[in-house]
Amino acid sequence: MAYPLLDRIDTPEDLRRFRESELKDLAPELRRFIIDIISEKEGHLGASLGVVELTIALHYVFQTPRDLLVWDVGHQAYGHKILTGRKNVFHTNRDLGGISGFPKRRESVYDTFGVGHSSTSISAALGMAMATALKNDSRKHIAVIGDASIASGMAFEALNHAGVSNADLLVVLNDNAIGIDPSVGALKQYLTRTKSGNETGQENLFEALNFDYYGPIDGHDLDKLIHELERQKNLKGPRLLHVRTTKGKGLQQAEQDQVKYHAPGRFDKITGELPPKNGDKLPPKYQEVFGETILELAKVNEKIVGITPAMPTGSSLKIMMEAMPDRAFDVGIAEQHAVTLAAGMVTQGLVPFCTIYSTFLQRAYDQVIHDVALQKLPVIFCLDRAGLVGKDGATHHGVFDLAYLNLIPDLIIAAPMDAVELRNLMFTASQGLDLPIAMRYPRGRCNILDWKMPFQQIPIGESRFLSKGSKVALISIGTIGSMVQDLIESEKLSITHLDARFLKPFDVKVLKQIFSSHDHIVTIEDGTEIGGLGDTVLGLASQLSYQGSIHKIGIPDQFIEHGSTADLHKMAGIDRESLLIKIKSLI
Amino acid sequence: MAYPLLDRIDTPEDLRRFRESELKDLAPELRRFIIDIISEKEGHLGASLGVVELTIALHYVFQTPRDLLVWDVGHQAYGHKILTGRKNVFHTNRDLGGISGFPKRRESVYDTFGVGHSSTSISAALGMAMATALKNDSRKHIAVIGDASIASGMAFEALNHAGVSNADLLVVLNDNAIGIDPSVGALKQYLTRTKSGNETGQENLFEALNFDYYGPIDGHDLDKLIHELERQKNLKGPRLLHVRTTKGKGLQQAEQDQVKYHAPGRFDKITGELPPKNGDKLPPKYQEVFGETILELAKVNEKIVGITPAMPTGSSLKIMMEAMPDRAFDVGIAEQHAVTLAAGMVTQGLVPFCTIYSTFLQRAYDQVIHDVALQKLPVIFCLDRAGLVGKDGATHHGVFDLAYLNLIPDLIIAAPMDAVELRNLMFTASQGLDLPIAMRYPRGRCNILDWKMPFQQIPIGESRFLSKGSKVALISIGTIGSMVQDLIESEKLSITHLDARFLKPFDVKVLKQIFSSHDHIVTIEDGTEIGGLGDTVLGLASQLSYQGSIHKIGIPDQFIEHGSTADLHKMAGIDRESLLIKIKSLI
Repeated sequence: MAYPLLDRIDTPEDLRRFRESELKDLAPELRRFIIDIISEKEGHLGASLGVVELTIALHYVFQTPRDLLVWDVGHQAYGHKILTGRKNVFHTNRDLGGISGFPKRRESVYDTFGVGHSSTSISAALGMAMATALKNDSRKHIAVIGDASIASGMAFEALNHAGVSNADLLVVLNDNAIGIDPSVGALKQYLTRTKSGNETGQENLFEALNFDYYGPIDGHDLDKLIHELERQKNLKGPRLLHVRTTKGKGLQQAEQDQVKYHAPGRFDKITGELPPKNGDKLPPKYQEVFGETILELAKVNEKIVGITPAMPTGSSLKIMMEAMPDRAFDVGIAEQHAVTLAAGMVTQGLVPFCTIYSTFLQRAYDQVIHDVALQKLPVIFCLDRAGLVGKDGATHHGVFDLAYLNLIPDLIIAAPMDAVELRNLMFTASQGLDLPIAMRYPRGRCNILDWKMPFQQIPIGESRFLSKGSKVALISIGTIGSMVQDLIESEKLSITHLDARFLKPFDVKVLKQIFSSHDHIVTIEDGTEIGGLGDTVLGLASQLSYQGSIHKIGIPDQFIEHGSTADLHKMAGIDRESLLIKIKSLI
Repeated sequence: MAYPLLDRIDTPEDLRRFRESELKDLAPELRRFIIDIISEKEGHLGASLGVVELTIALHYVFQTPRDLLVWDVGHQAYGHKILTGRKNVFHTNRDLGGISGFPKRRESVYDTFGVGHSSTSISAALGMAMATALKNDSRKHIAVIGDASIASGMAFEALNHAGVSNADLLVVLNDNAIGIDPSVGALKQYLTRTKSGNETGQENLFEALNFDYYGPIDGHDLDKLIHELERQKNLKGPRLLHVRTTKGKGLQQAEQDQVKYHAPGRFDKITGELPPKNGDKLPPKYQEVFGETILELAKVNEKIVGITPAMPTGSSLKIMMEAMPDRAFDVGIAEQHAVTLAAGMVTQGLVPFCTIYSTFLQRAYDQVIHDVALQKLPVIFCLDRAGLVGKDGATHHGVFDLAYLNLIPDLIIAAPMDAVELRNLMFTASQGLDLPIAMRYPRGRCNILDWKMPFQQIPIGESRFLSKGSKVALISIGTIGSMVQDLIESEKLSITHLDARFLKPFDVKVLKQIFSSHDHIVTIEDGTEIGGLGDTVLGLASQLSYQGSIHKIGIPDQFIEHGSTADLHKMAGIDRESLLIKIKSLI
């Protein structure tokens, strides 16, 4: 099937030459284009389907790229990409060397601000608007932000500042009552209560912050949207347009199961159906291991609680939330709050597991230092999606955690090599520690079918040998150790392999043994080469006057783009082949 | 003068035996006690004077420590400390080995949560309240938070969560329209507009978030406070009591100049007057060097703007704000927003200097990575109060910055050794860079009277030799280099001293020279031993197969408490004597 209208659009300039009456047919066509590609290529479906009309209306009414449009998070920006010159490369979405799944400045002049993490758009657009004002320029500035994202603290900070500025800033609140999982929190309830026309005469919450508020309006009614955006275009100062949309709009299954169709993988583009599950028994995802294990532990220890900032499905905390709704909490996109909430709970004797994606813990860095570690409160951090995450790319790789945590005193840092180790670490932490602990594990499946073994306590700071040889010792941390061990076994290398398990406290005793009996040491980690395992071993080697050579393998000091995890590992030089070459050069 | 009522109080239990009519005389006495001590010992005066009645009322009405009271930030907690068993040690406030200037769990059972950074109290108290509910216990939970702190994003996240909980949580909003500097932002304007009695019939902003709102009430009217707190004690669910207070209450000068009397240093306890300024010409503070230099640069480059999150006075950005109110901005306690706002400005060609205390940049770590470095947007970060800050103690030391920034790709990291270098670095950055830069400098006076020298560009990544010798080379970064150089000169040591200037990019070329001509290298920094200069040199030594010895001197891997900066440097082993001992062991 062709795309007669879409084919006429290379840039929004072309779109703006359309008659308004033609746009109604463009919307289903754009939706179909997204579905046609994403059903095969995979990607973030639901959010982009929900803003098809809004995307068309924004580019139709505003003079992009002269007017500056910032999409929050960017899951919803596929339509934007397609209308702004990337229709013909859209099939490369999220591929190595292809376009990014998120707006990205280097990719297009229409992508005014790179996004990925939530709630940045109002700050960025306000910065742009203040620059425009200083330059006596006349651009318009629009931030499009979802109801889940606007509830995050950073967005509030931006609203609070914008409300006392005269910035020419339009915030479009794309209210679909869901982020990746359904939105939570008091603001969400408030937004749901709002009625159009302000007929109650009450001051609206955004009006209380000095915003000119209008809405809510139907975000799938193109005429209304265009009419209202035209009106907004001629207003000045900070204003908020509240638009109600349906995530997954236009694909029945996506509307009905909005969580699953956020990023459904491949599906049938006509029926919307997902392919039947492979009958083969596959090892579980690390997330399932986490989710099932925390529930198992919580059943026997009533002090255990679970906390996730807006990722119940992604983290699998959902398993516990469904079984124990009083003891597992989704606090919304609020990593800062999640961490300090957990700290508060610990003071009263609870044992909180706080599961946060590695890349999102960056949002709560101060809270980990100031509220948790400084007070030695044994919060248990389960850092999900550590290491290179693949197609989500540079904004989402969890490669900094080992290094940024390593410098914090009084924090235990661990990385299990496999699912059994993760379970045992969780068990160990649940038994009560004197200090907080962070354990990191990757996205995706583990490599053990038989993972539900009886729990075993792991002594804090204890490494383990997986093979013993002489001359060369390999020290790994985390799941990359499985690749290392597999390489050693399949290549029959007679070298030592130590699974460090803990970055902190580091197993100095065993390291001394290794120093005393090996000429070369190779450290390998799927984290930054700076500040992690390699640097820790180097520091100890210097202290202990080790005379042999040490070779760090880790993520080089650069941002890594998107692509398959395997490709990215290769590019970063932390793959099997690179390691083998390094080992061979040493034996 | 004695304290007849205060002398009867060792714990709040004693206070609660008072007749309500006696409390009116206790308030001025408590105020006098604070003034008597702080006028000599120095400390945070204004905030504690403002909450004397509130402090008495809270401990009178609630069953502390069984009921859990969390003070936000903690500047205002002196009265609390005095009433909870620390009257007799209050004169050791902020001294080495003495009590902390902030609430601290290890110090007292009445200090339920350690604070220092703002806006954590609602999260912590909510965590406590949720724990109480799970344990079917019946404690009360109170967070006392100022109007400047509640405007920070983290507090909003906590309100948003608390609003959908059934937690027994009372938030007392201590609204005095000022933090350290006057409060800013739309919420502040809103709070100022609120009138008691809700006579307008409009839904209050906090009610919109499902809080039971009451107020504003006069926070200096003890009867009203006690009456209202008694009522609040018997309510359930999340509720907010809006209390209006006057910062500095009871000391005329402190009420009139609230910024200066936030922490005025010594003053006359009767007249309130500050001692006359020393007539000797002293070198300026680094903050003044920053403040005057940014203004000087901004006068010739209209693209330069300044941003501070709530520290215009402390950072001296005030100098530019007063001269160029359109180009220098206080965005409130909103580090996250400040950083991404700056990033947005850079996209439109502005040159933002974003000045943030080193310890507070921890709050915006993700934004530095995700919004700034990942997009290579040349924001200029001026990190104030780097290194050990002295009496503010563990919550405020700026010792992590070198390490937590070091692992971020595409970020330039610098530390000027003195005021002239700071100026030249600021000048260099203002000329336009391809990458963001962070430059850190300490609190307090520099050591150069004649600092206003003509600007000189500093090539990015270029170190400089301050002395040349053989065998031993000292590599320093930042202002600690002045101590090093002074030691070398006064002890006539014939060793090499390299001022690295930049941690990143590191001057590898010069380091190679040093490696090739020295047997021992000592690195010294006033940052964590893990992840900073020392580890960078170790990493390069390993790469370049340097065979000599390397000795790292830096802050050991532990939290450092409060005390004089000199004492703390000694304790941390980064003082002159420790360095001399190390050098002598090598030559």
